[in-house]
Amino acid sequence: MNDILHSSALLKEHDNYHILIHAYPDGDAIGSGYALCRALHSIGKKANVVCTSPIPKMYSYIVDKVQMQDFAPETFISTDVADLRLLGNGYEQYEGKVLLSLDHHGTNKRYSKYWVIDPHAASACEIVLEVIKMLGVSVDKEIAECIYTGISTDTGCFKFANTTSQTLRNAADMLDFGIDAAEINRVMFETKSRNRIELERLALDSMSFHLGGKVAFVTITNEMREKAGASDDDLEGMTSLSRQVEGVKIGVTLRQKEDGEYKISVRTHPPVDAAEICSNFGGGGHVRAAGCTLSGAIDDIKEQMIEVCSKALEKCKW
Amino acid sequence: MNDILHSSALLKEHDNYHILIHAYPDGDAIGSGYALCRALHSIGKKANVVCTSPIPKMYSYIVDKVQMQDFAPETFISTDVADLRLLGNGYEQYEGKVLLSLDHHGTNKRYSKYWVIDPHAASACEIVLEVIKMLGVSVDKEIAECIYTGISTDTGCFKFANTTSQTLRNAADMLDFGIDAAEINRVMFETKSRNRIELERLALDSMSFHLGGKVAFVTITNEMREKAGASDDDLEGMTSLSRQVEGVKIGVTLRQKEDGEYKISVRTHPPVDAAEICSNFGGGGHVRAAGCTLSGAIDDIKEQMIEVCSKALEKCKW
Repeated sequence: MNDILHSSALLKEHDNYHILIHAYPDGDAIGSGYALCRALHSIGKKANVVCTSPIPKMYSYIVDKVQMQDFAPETFISTDVADLRLLGNGYEQYEGKVLLSLDHHGTNKRYSKYWVIDPHAASACEIVLEVIKMLGVSVDKEIAECIYTGISTDTGCFKFANTTSQTLRNAADMLDFGIDAAEINRVMFETKSRNRIELERLALDSMSFHLGGKVAFVTITNEMREKAGASDDDLEGMTSLSRQVEGVKIGVTLRQKEDGEYKISVRTHPPVDAAEICSNFGGGGHVRAAGCTLSGAIDDIKEQMIEVCSKALEKCKW
Repeated sequence: MNDILHSSALLKEHDNYHILIHAYPDGDAIGSGYALCRALHSIGKKANVVCTSPIPKMYSYIVDKVQMQDFAPETFISTDVADLRLLGNGYEQYEGKVLLSLDHHGTNKRYSKYWVIDPHAASACEIVLEVIKMLGVSVDKEIAECIYTGISTDTGCFKFANTTSQTLRNAADMLDFGIDAAEINRVMFETKSRNRIELERLALDSMSFHLGGKVAFVTITNEMREKAGASDDDLEGMTSLSRQVEGVKIGVTLRQKEDGEYKISVRTHPPVDAAEICSNFGGGGHVRAAGCTLSGAIDDIKEQMIEVCSKALEKCKW
């Protein structure tokens, strides 16, 4: 709370803000950056949101409502940026220059002079919301759209385990400003590129089941990516396909990299330990989601994976 | 509010309850029925949930925690039942015998002596929650699991337009009882049968684009259903596949029926009127979701649909 109070005092004191968000921005980066930008404008400050990569068109309902301002930047603030490097090209120019970082990543590198870091917040937007309230700014429909977008994005529309009761109450408050949350969710979660659809089709074609249907493999080769015209964006979330199938305890996605090696993503259901499976191949991660890299012929790789998965299932007496 | 007060008085007055839920029950039917059942048990009443069809295994985290009781039923209550016929086989035995109906369907047929019908509630569970509170029952973790399940199911995990700020606040309250909401959502939304996955694969194979990618067709033939081993349950939600594709304004799903006719489902993005498109073929529905039935060769049907879609797009100047 003191952090929030101090942050709002800092923001009142300074002016001419560049609000830095990470490259390849998602809904939380964009939502938190633009919400803060709007709030600063409303208290008479000059501010722009700055991002080194283009902001996806789907977020135009946020971006198009804010006019870029012409001024010489004096103060640098970051939202949702755990590490300065995540700013992308030219990040070095900001080293030692960021006044305040508002973030929800516990891993935040503390690269700024001051920070508010709350790893219990599901989104950076929830922290920005507190700062905005402390600034004395009245939240309006446009700010509410920004905040809701970030909360919804980072919780998978309230589906993930990071969703707290406070998250839901914050979202409820945003709905009370009259936003069209269903339309935001449609844009975020119900819209796929044709290339993505094509890649999913090919991925489903590649799906194979092993060990009595308890293990599922999805393979994504460079040839498939090329055939589908799929970008890196289109690959997002593909690792959840295999684990979704009823009866599957271990979902394995094998993605060929440009150099021909395979990046293996393992997703498990309790109590199978994904990190332990990947540690057999020098990889690691979390108990439900882990990864490793393997090289060689795809059939050999699959055989090795099946062997390790078989042992992991035995351990759980499955 | 008076309705809720009166309902709780009725429930305190009577005993030996059969709580009726609709056949082929979903999360809201099961959640509302079992939440009320648990609440009645906790004030010393005898109560069972009664359903004419088996309750899907995925809901065992609700059902397995409630012991069926042995008693002669005296009082019939329904939750989430808009029409007595929805009870399925043998519904006639309840005609004129239902004391109280707790429902959120504005179309409720008022078949009971008393009722609480609130079409603004996203789920029947939200109405049952109010009644439970008025009964003076302390909500516990198990009741919270039931209520959350219904709310989450009927709002597509808070994604749909029926989600109100009150819906989100009710869900937040349930989280405060320590439920594992993420696990409930995984079971509800992230689990697909192998047959469903196979049907999706075939459906994606069938996807075709027309009128510059603004119209997408998905065809599901009896042969495909048979090949995938897909049940009626597996067909649920398939109509949203085509509209999800970026750039698609009109998503059309053509599903062959057993008699060979095609059931056409049309899903549109604003401002295209789905009901108007279907009215050309004697069908109807809502502005974003409508349907009709056509017979004949599939290619002829598609040609007719394209013609009508083309006019609908022209009308919107697309």
